[in-house]
Amino acid sequence: MSESAERDARHAARMQRKKALIDQKIAEAQDEYGLLLVHSGNGKGKSSSAFGMLARALGHGMRCGVVQFIKGAASTGEETFFRRFPDEVSYHVMGEGFTWETQDRQRDIAKASEAWAVARQLLSDESIGLVILDELNIALKHGYLQLEPVLADIQARPLNQHVVVTGRGAPAALIEAADTVTEMTLVKHAFKAGVKAQKGVEF
Amino acid sequence: MSESAERDARHAARMQRKKALIDQKIAEAQDEYGLLLVHSGNGKGKSSSAFGMLARALGHGMRCGVVQFIKGAASTGEETFFRRFPDEVSYHVMGEGFTWETQDRQRDIAKASEAWAVARQLLSDESIGLVILDELNIALKHGYLQLEPVLADIQARPLNQHVVVTGRGAPAALIEAADTVTEMTLVKHAFKAGVKAQKGVEF
Repeated sequence: MSESAERDARHAARMQRKKALIDQKIAEAQDEYGLLLVHSGNGKGKSSSAFGMLARALGHGMRCGVVQFIKGAASTGEETFFRRFPDEVSYHVMGEGFTWETQDRQRDIAKASEAWAVARQLLSDESIGLVILDELNIALKHGYLQLEPVLADIQARPLNQHVVVTGRGAPAALIEAADTVTEMTLVKHAFKAGVKAQKGVEF
Repeated sequence: MSESAERDARHAARMQRKKALIDQKIAEAQDEYGLLLVHSGNGKGKSSSAFGMLARALGHGMRCGVVQFIKGAASTGEETFFRRFPDEVSYHVMGEGFTWETQDRQRDIAKASEAWAVARQLLSDESIGLVILDELNIALKHGYLQLEPVLADIQARPLNQHVVVTGRGAPAALIEAADTVTEMTLVKHAFKAGVKAQKGVEF
Protein backbone atom coordinates (compact mmCIF):
# COMPACT_ATOMS: atom_id res chain seq x y z
CA MET A 1 0.00 0.00 0.00
CA SER A 2 1.42 3.46 -0.90
CA GLU A 3 1.97 6.04 1.83
CA SER A 4 -0.85 8.18 0.51
CA ALA A 5 -3.28 5.24 0.28
CA GLU A 6 -2.37 4.25 3.83
CA ARG A 7 -3.06 7.77 5.06
CA ASP A 8 -6.42 7.70 3.27
CA ALA A 9 -7.30 4.36 4.83
CA ARG A 10 -6.40 5.56 8.32
CA HIS A 11 -8.47 8.67 7.68
CA ALA A 12 -11.49 6.60 6.59
CA ALA A 13 -11.23 4.38 9.68
CA ARG A 14 -10.96 7.38 12.00
CA MET A 15 -13.91 9.11 10.38
CA GLN A 16 -15.99 5.92 10.58
CA ARG A 17 -15.44 5.73 14.34
CA LYS A 18 -16.30 9.44 14.64
CA LYS A 19 -19.51 8.98 12.63
CA ALA A 20 -20.58 6.06 14.82
CA LEU A 21 -20.04 8.12 17.97
CA ILE A 22 -21.94 11.12 16.62
CA ASP A 23 -24.84 9.04 15.31
CA GLN A 24 -25.16 7.49 18.76
CA LYS A 25 -25.20 10.89 20.49
CA ILE A 26 -27.91 12.11 18.11
CA ALA A 27 -30.03 9.02 18.77
CA GLU A 28 -29.69 9.56 22.52
CA ALA A 29 -30.79 13.19 22.32
CA GLN A 30 -34.55 12.88 22.38
CA ASP A 31 -36.09 15.95 23.95
CA GLU A 32 -37.43 18.64 21.66
CA TYR A 33 -38.24 21.99 23.19
CA GLY A 34 -37.37 25.64 23.01
CA LEU A 35 -33.89 26.38 24.32
CA LEU A 36 -32.56 29.24 26.40
CA LEU A 37 -29.19 30.33 25.02
CA VAL A 38 -26.82 32.83 26.58
CA HIS A 39 -24.01 34.59 24.65
CA SER A 40 -21.61 36.29 27.01
CA GLY A 41 -17.91 37.21 27.28
CA ASN A 42 -15.73 40.10 26.12
CA GLY A 43 -15.23 38.95 22.53
CA LYS A 44 -17.05 39.89 19.35
CA GLY A 45 -20.01 37.89 18.07
CA LYS A 46 -22.50 37.80 20.94
CA SER A 47 -25.14 39.83 19.13
CA SER A 48 -24.15 38.92 15.59
CA SER A 49 -24.43 35.23 16.45
CA ALA A 50 -27.96 35.85 17.73
CA PHE A 51 -28.80 37.63 14.47
CA GLY A 52 -27.35 34.73 12.50
CA MET A 53 -29.76 32.46 14.38
CA LEU A 54 -32.55 34.85 13.46
CA ALA A 55 -31.71 34.37 9.76
CA ARG A 56 -31.59 30.60 10.33
CA ALA A 57 -34.99 30.60 12.06
CA LEU A 58 -36.51 32.70 9.26
CA GLY A 59 -35.17 30.15 6.81
CA HIS A 60 -37.21 27.55 8.68
CA GLY A 61 -40.34 29.71 8.38
CA MET A 62 -40.45 30.74 12.05
CA ARG A 63 -41.75 34.11 13.22
CA CYS A 64 -39.25 35.92 15.44
CA GLY A 65 -39.02 38.80 17.88
CA VAL A 66 -36.13 41.10 18.78
CA VAL A 67 -35.79 43.51 21.70
CA GLN A 68 -32.60 45.58 21.83
CA PHE A 69 -32.12 46.80 25.39
CA ILE A 70 -29.13 49.09 25.05
CA LYS A 71 -27.80 49.58 21.57
CA GLY A 72 -30.73 51.53 20.20
CA ALA A 73 -29.03 54.88 19.73
CA ALA A 74 -27.33 53.90 16.48
CA SER A 75 -29.37 52.49 13.62
CA THR A 76 -27.40 49.34 12.95
CA GLY A 77 -27.18 47.31 9.79
CA GLU A 78 -29.07 44.41 11.37
CA GLU A 79 -32.01 46.63 12.21
CA THR A 80 -32.17 48.09 8.70
CA PHE A 81 -31.97 44.61 7.21
CA PHE A 82 -34.43 42.71 9.41
CA ARG A 83 -37.00 45.52 9.30
CA ARG A 84 -37.44 44.52 5.64
CA PHE A 85 -39.55 41.61 6.93
CA PRO A 86 -42.19 43.15 9.22
CA ASP A 87 -44.53 40.13 8.93
CA GLU A 88 -41.77 37.76 10.04
CA VAL A 89 -39.74 39.83 12.50
CA SER A 90 -41.19 41.89 15.32
CA TYR A 91 -38.28 44.30 15.89
CA HIS A 92 -38.09 46.63 18.89
CA VAL A 93 -35.25 49.02 19.66
CA MET A 94 -35.89 50.18 23.20
CA GLY A 95 -32.57 51.38 24.59
CA GLU A 96 -31.31 54.90 23.93
CA GLY A 97 -27.64 54.24 23.47
CA PHE A 98 -25.00 52.91 25.78
CA THR A 99 -25.36 53.93 29.40
CA TRP A 100 -22.16 55.94 29.20
CA GLU A 101 -23.83 58.04 26.53
CA THR A 102 -27.01 58.75 28.49
CA GLN A 103 -25.47 59.53 31.92
CA ASP A 104 -28.88 59.24 33.60
CA ARG A 105 -29.57 56.18 35.71
CA GLN A 106 -33.24 56.82 36.44
CA ARG A 107 -34.01 57.23 32.75
CA ASP A 108 -32.09 54.03 31.96
CA ILE A 109 -34.20 52.15 34.53
CA ALA A 110 -37.46 53.51 33.11
CA LYS A 111 -36.38 52.62 29.55
CA ALA A 112 -35.36 49.11 30.60
CA SER A 113 -38.77 48.54 32.21
CA GLU A 114 -40.54 49.63 29.04
CA ALA A 115 -38.30 47.28 27.05
CA TRP A 116 -39.12 44.39 29.37
CA ALA A 117 -42.88 44.99 28.92
CA VAL A 118 -42.34 44.46 25.17
CA ALA A 119 -40.18 41.39 25.80
CA ARG A 120 -42.92 39.89 28.02
CA GLN A 121 -45.42 40.20 25.18
CA LEU A 122 -43.11 38.32 22.82
CA LEU A 123 -42.41 35.72 25.53
CA SER A 124 -46.15 35.03 25.85
CA ASP A 125 -46.84 34.82 22.10
CA GLU A 126 -47.20 31.20 20.91
CA SER A 127 -46.70 32.24 17.28
CA ILE A 128 -43.13 33.47 17.94
CA GLY A 129 -40.50 30.74 17.58
CA LEU A 130 -37.39 32.73 18.55
CA VAL A 131 -36.93 35.78 20.78
CA ILE A 132 -33.64 37.71 20.90
CA LEU A 133 -33.09 39.77 24.05
CA ASP A 134 -30.08 41.73 22.86
CA GLU A 135 -27.84 43.24 25.57
CA LEU A 136 -30.26 42.19 28.30
CA ASN A 137 -27.23 41.14 30.38
CA ILE A 138 -26.05 44.76 30.47
CA ALA A 139 -29.42 45.95 31.76
CA LEU A 140 -29.31 43.24 34.44
CA LYS A 141 -25.70 43.94 35.39
CA HIS A 142 -26.39 47.63 35.96
CA GLY A 143 -29.49 46.80 38.00
CA TYR A 144 -31.85 48.44 35.50
CA LEU A 145 -33.94 45.26 35.67
CA GLN A 146 -34.32 42.72 38.48
CA LEU A 147 -33.25 39.20 37.61
CA GLU A 148 -36.00 37.20 39.36
CA PRO A 149 -39.05 38.51 37.44
CA VAL A 150 -37.06 38.48 34.19
CA LEU A 151 -36.13 34.82 34.68
CA ALA A 152 -39.70 33.94 35.68
CA ASP A 153 -41.07 35.44 32.47
CA ILE A 154 -38.46 33.62 30.38
CA GLN A 155 -39.25 30.32 32.05
CA ALA A 156 -43.01 30.77 31.58
CA ARG A 157 -42.64 31.13 27.78
CA PRO A 158 -44.31 28.77 25.25
CA LEU A 159 -42.77 25.29 25.22
CA ASN A 160 -41.28 25.48 21.73
CA GLN A 161 -39.98 29.03 21.86
CA HIS A 162 -36.21 29.60 21.74
CA VAL A 163 -34.72 32.58 23.59
CA VAL A 164 -31.25 34.09 23.11
CA VAL A 165 -29.89 36.50 25.70
CA THR A 166 -26.75 38.47 24.82
CA GLY A 167 -24.33 40.79 26.60
CA ARG A 168 -21.22 40.77 28.76
CA GLY A 169 -21.42 39.68 32.36
CA ALA A 170 -24.35 37.24 32.27
CA PRO A 171 -25.59 36.71 35.87
CA ALA A 172 -24.84 33.30 37.40
CA ALA A 173 -28.53 32.43 37.85
CA LEU A 174 -29.17 33.04 34.16
CA ILE A 175 -26.25 30.79 33.20
CA GLU A 176 -27.63 28.19 35.59
CA ALA A 177 -31.08 28.37 33.95
CA ALA A 178 -29.73 28.28 30.38
CA ASP A 179 -29.51 25.22 28.13
CA THR A 180 -26.55 26.49 26.13
CA VAL A 181 -24.00 29.09 27.16
CA THR A 182 -21.23 30.40 24.93
CA GLU A 183 -18.46 32.64 26.11
CA MET A 184 -17.08 34.79 23.29
CA THR A 185 -13.43 35.36 24.21
CA LEU A 186 -11.38 38.14 22.71
CA VAL A 187 -8.16 36.77 21.28
CA LYS A 188 -7.24 39.80 19.16
CA HIS A 189 -9.22 42.88 18.17
CA ALA A 190 -8.52 45.32 15.34
CA PHE A 191 -10.15 48.14 17.30
CA LYS A 192 -7.59 47.78 20.07
CA ALA A 193 -4.81 47.89 17.49
CA GLY A 194 -5.96 51.36 16.37
CA VAL A 195 -8.33 50.44 13.52
CA LYS A 196 -11.56 52.41 13.23
CA ALA A 197 -14.85 50.56 13.81
CA GLN A 198 -15.91 49.29 10.39
CA LYS A 199 -19.35 49.44 8.75
CA GLY A 200 -20.68 45.91 8.27
CA VAL A 201 -18.36 44.49 10.90
CA GLU A 202 -18.76 46.44 14.11
CA PHE A 203 -22.12 48.13 13.50
CA MET B 1 -28.21 63.20 49.72
CA SER B 2 -30.34 60.02 49.81
CA GLU B 3 -28.69 56.64 49.31
CA SER B 4 -30.38 56.24 45.93
CA ALA B 5 -29.36 59.72 44.74
CA GLU B 6 -25.78 59.03 45.85
CA ARG B 7 -25.75 55.80 43.89
CA ASP B 8 -27.06 57.64 40.84
CA ALA B 9 -24.38 60.31 41.18
CA ARG B 10 -21.61 57.72 41.49
CA HIS B 11 -23.03 55.97 38.45
CA ALA B 12 -23.06 59.21 36.41
CA ALA B 13 -19.45 59.96 37.36
CA ARG B 14 -18.32 56.44 36.46
CA MET B 15 -20.13 56.53 33.12
CA GLN B 16 -18.65 59.97 32.32
CA ARG B 17 -15.12 58.61 32.82
CA LYS B 18 -16.02 55.58 30.66
CA LYS B 19 -17.40 57.80 27.88
CA ALA B 20 -14.25 59.95 27.86
CA LEU B 21 -12.06 56.88 27.55
CA ILE B 22 -14.14 55.37 24.75
CA ASP B 23 -14.37 58.64 22.80
CA GLN B 24 -10.59 58.91 22.98
CA LYS B 25 -10.11 55.35 21.68
CA ILE B 26 -12.47 56.03 18.77
CA ALA B 27 -10.60 59.23 17.87
CA GLU B 28 -7.31 57.32 17.87
CA ALA B 29 -8.61 54.60 15.56
CA GLN B 30 -8.12 56.11 12.14
CA ASP B 31 -7.49 53.40 9.58
CA GLU B 32 -10.38 52.25 7.44
CA TYR B 33 -9.98 49.04 5.48
CA GLY B 34 -11.42 45.59 5.07
CA LEU B 35 -10.79 43.35 8.06
CA LEU B 36 -9.89 39.69 8.30
CA LEU B 37 -11.87 38.11 11.12
CA VAL B 38 -11.45 34.59 12.48
CA HIS B 39 -14.12 32.79 14.54
CA SER B 40 -12.69 29.69 16.16
CA GLY B 41 -13.11 27.57 19.32
CA ASN B 42 -15.35 24.70 20.42
CA GLY B 43 -18.40 26.77 21.35
CA LYS B 44 -21.51 27.63 19.37
CA GLY B 45 -21.77 30.79 17.34
CA LYS B 46 -18.79 30.70 14.94
CA SER B 47 -20.91 30.40 11.80
CA SER B 48 -24.04 32.09 13.11
CA SER B 49 -22.00 35.14 14.09
CA ALA B 50 -20.64 35.31 10.55
CA PHE B 51 -24.21 35.13 9.21
CA GLY B 52 -25.26 37.89 11.60
CA MET B 53 -22.50 40.02 10.07
CA LEU B 54 -23.89 39.14 6.66
CA ALA B 55 -27.28 40.56 7.68
CA ARG B 56 -25.53 43.64 9.06
CA ALA B 57 -23.58 44.17 5.84
CA LEU B 58 -26.74 43.76 3.73
CA GLY B 59 -28.36 46.41 5.92
CA HIS B 60 -25.55 48.73 4.85
CA GLY B 61 -26.21 47.97 1.18
CA MET B 62 -23.10 45.84 0.65
CA ARG B 63 -22.97 42.90 -1.74
CA CYS B 64 -21.71 39.72 -0.05
CA GLY B 65 -20.37 36.27 -0.86
CA VAL B 66 -20.57 32.99 1.05
CA VAL B 67 -18.64 29.78 0.50
CA GLN B 68 -19.51 26.86 2.77
CA PHE B 69 -16.62 24.41 2.73
CA ILE B 70 -17.98 21.53 4.76
CA LYS B 71 -21.52 21.83 5.94
CA GLY B 72 -23.19 21.58 2.56
CA ALA B 73 -24.88 18.22 3.01
CA ALA B 74 -27.78 19.61 5.03
CA SER B 75 -29.81 22.49 3.65
CA THR B 76 -29.58 24.85 6.57
CA GLY B 77 -31.91 27.66 7.53
CA GLU B 78 -29.31 30.29 6.69
CA GLU B 79 -28.95 29.01 3.17
CA THR B 80 -32.71 28.97 2.59
CA PHE B 81 -33.00 32.47 3.98
CA PHE B 82 -30.07 34.19 2.28
CA ARG B 83 -30.84 32.60 -1.09
CA ARG B 84 -33.89 34.86 -1.10
CA PHE B 85 -31.53 37.69 -2.12
CA PRO B 86 -29.63 36.42 -5.16
CA ASP B 87 -28.68 39.95 -6.32
CA GLU B 88 -27.14 40.77 -2.95
CA VAL B 89 -25.70 37.45 -1.79
CA SER B 90 -23.58 35.13 -3.92
CA TYR B 91 -24.12 31.87 -2.00
CA HIS B 92 -22.09 28.73 -2.67
CA VAL B 93 -22.43 25.44 -0.85
CA MET B 94 -19.41 23.42 -1.92
CA GLY B 95 -18.85 20.78 0.76
CA GLU B 96 -20.71 17.49 0.75
CA GLY B 97 -21.30 17.05 4.42
CA PHE B 98 -18.94 16.53 7.31
CA THR B 99 -15.86 14.50 6.55
CA TRP B 100 -17.02 11.74 8.84
CA GLU B 101 -20.08 11.39 6.61
CA THR B 102 -18.14 11.14 3.34
CA GLN B 103 -15.36 8.75 4.42
CA ASP B 104 -13.34 9.55 1.32
CA ARG B 105 -10.25 11.74 1.71
CA GLN B 106 -9.41 12.14 -1.98
CA ARG B 107 -12.92 13.32 -2.76
CA ASP B 108 -12.80 15.77 0.15
CA ILE B 109 -9.57 17.24 -1.24
CA ALA B 110 -11.04 17.61 -4.73
CA LYS B 111 -14.19 19.26 -3.35
CA ALA B 112 -12.15 21.65 -1.20
CA SER B 113 -10.11 22.72 -4.23
CA GLU B 114 -13.28 23.42 -6.21
CA ALA B 115 -14.59 25.44 -3.27
CA TRP B 116 -11.40 27.47 -3.11
CA ALA B 117 -11.65 28.32 -6.81
CA VAL B 118 -15.05 29.89 -6.07
CA ALA B 119 -13.66 31.67 -3.00
CA ARG B 120 -10.82 33.14 -5.10
CA GLN B 121 -13.33 34.65 -7.50
CA LEU B 122 -15.16 36.36 -4.64
CA LEU B 123 -11.84 37.50 -3.16
CA SER B 124 -10.95 39.21 -6.43
CA ASP B 125 -14.33 40.91 -6.95
CA GLU B 126 -14.23 44.62 -6.03
CA SER B 127 -18.03 44.78 -5.83
CA ILE B 128 -18.17 42.31 -2.90
CA GLY B 129 -17.87 43.97 0.51
CA LEU B 130 -17.92 40.87 2.72
CA VAL B 131 -16.86 37.27 2.07
CA ILE B 132 -17.71 34.46 4.50
CA LEU B 133 -15.47 31.39 4.26
CA ASP B 134 -17.53 29.07 6.43
CA GLU B 135 -15.70 26.10 7.98
CA LEU B 136 -12.56 26.88 6.01
CA ASN B 137 -10.55 26.09 9.17
CA ILE B 138 -11.77 22.49 9.04
CA ALA B 139 -10.62 22.11 5.43
CA LEU B 140 -7.21 23.55 6.41
CA LYS B 141 -6.93 21.40 9.54
CA HIS B 142 -7.53 18.18 7.62
CA GLY B 143 -5.02 19.25 4.97
CA TYR B 144 -7.67 19.41 2.24
CA LEU B 145 -6.26 22.85 1.36
CA GLN B 146 -2.76 24.26 1.82
CA LEU B 147 -2.53 27.32 4.06
CA GLU B 148 0.05 29.37 2.11
CA PRO B 149 -1.87 29.88 -1.18
CA VAL B 150 -5.12 30.36 0.78
CA LEU B 151 -3.57 33.12 2.88
CA ALA B 152 -1.96 34.72 -0.19
CA ASP B 153 -5.35 34.94 -1.92
CA ILE B 154 -6.98 36.40 1.19
CA GLN B 155 -4.25 39.01 1.54
CA ALA B 156 -4.48 39.99 -2.14
CA ARG B 157 -8.19 40.85 -1.85
CA PRO B 158 -9.64 44.34 -2.56
CA LEU B 159 -8.68 46.92 0.07
CA ASN B 160 -12.18 47.46 1.47
CA GLN B 161 -13.34 43.84 1.49
CA HIS B 162 -14.02 42.15 4.84
CA VAL B 163 -13.41 38.41 5.19
CA VAL B 164 -14.69 36.12 7.94
CA VAL B 165 -13.17 32.66 8.35
CA THR B 166 -14.95 30.20 10.65
CA GLY B 167 -14.28 26.76 12.10
CA ARG B 168 -12.53 25.02 14.97
CA GLY B 169 -8.77 24.84 15.11
CA ALA B 170 -7.77 27.96 13.18
CA PRO B 171 -4.10 27.60 12.12
CA ALA B 172 -1.63 29.84 13.96
CA ALA B 173 -0.54 31.66 10.79
CA LEU B 174 -4.15 32.59 10.05
CA ILE B 175 -4.61 33.95 13.57
CA GLU B 176 -1.39 35.88 13.12
CA ALA B 177 -2.64 37.41 9.86
CA ALA B 178 -6.12 38.26 11.22
CA ASP B 179 -7.24 41.66 12.50
CA THR B 180 -9.83 40.25 14.89
CA VAL B 181 -9.96 36.77 16.39
CA THR B 182 -12.75 35.47 18.58
CA GLU B 183 -12.65 32.17 20.40
CA MET B 184 -16.15 30.79 21.02
CA THR B 185 -15.84 28.78 24.22
CA LEU B 186 -18.36 26.17 25.23
CA VAL B 187 -19.58 26.83 28.76
CA LYS B 188 -22.65 24.59 28.61
CA HIS B 189 -24.38 22.84 25.73
CA ALA B 190 -27.90 21.42 25.62
CA PHE B 191 -26.83 18.79 23.08
CA LYS B 192 -24.35 17.32 25.57
CA ALA B 193 -27.11 17.20 28.19
CA GLY B 194 -29.18 14.92 25.92
CA VAL B 195 -31.31 17.47 24.10
CA LYS B 196 -31.94 16.88 20.40
CA ALA B 197 -30.43 19.40 17.93
CA GLN B 198 -33.15 22.02 17.42
CA LYS B 199 -34.38 23.56 14.19
CA GLY B 200 -33.55 27.29 14.11
CA VAL B 201 -30.86 26.88 16.75
CA GLU B 202 -28.43 24.18 15.65
CA PHE B 203 -29.23 23.99 11.94
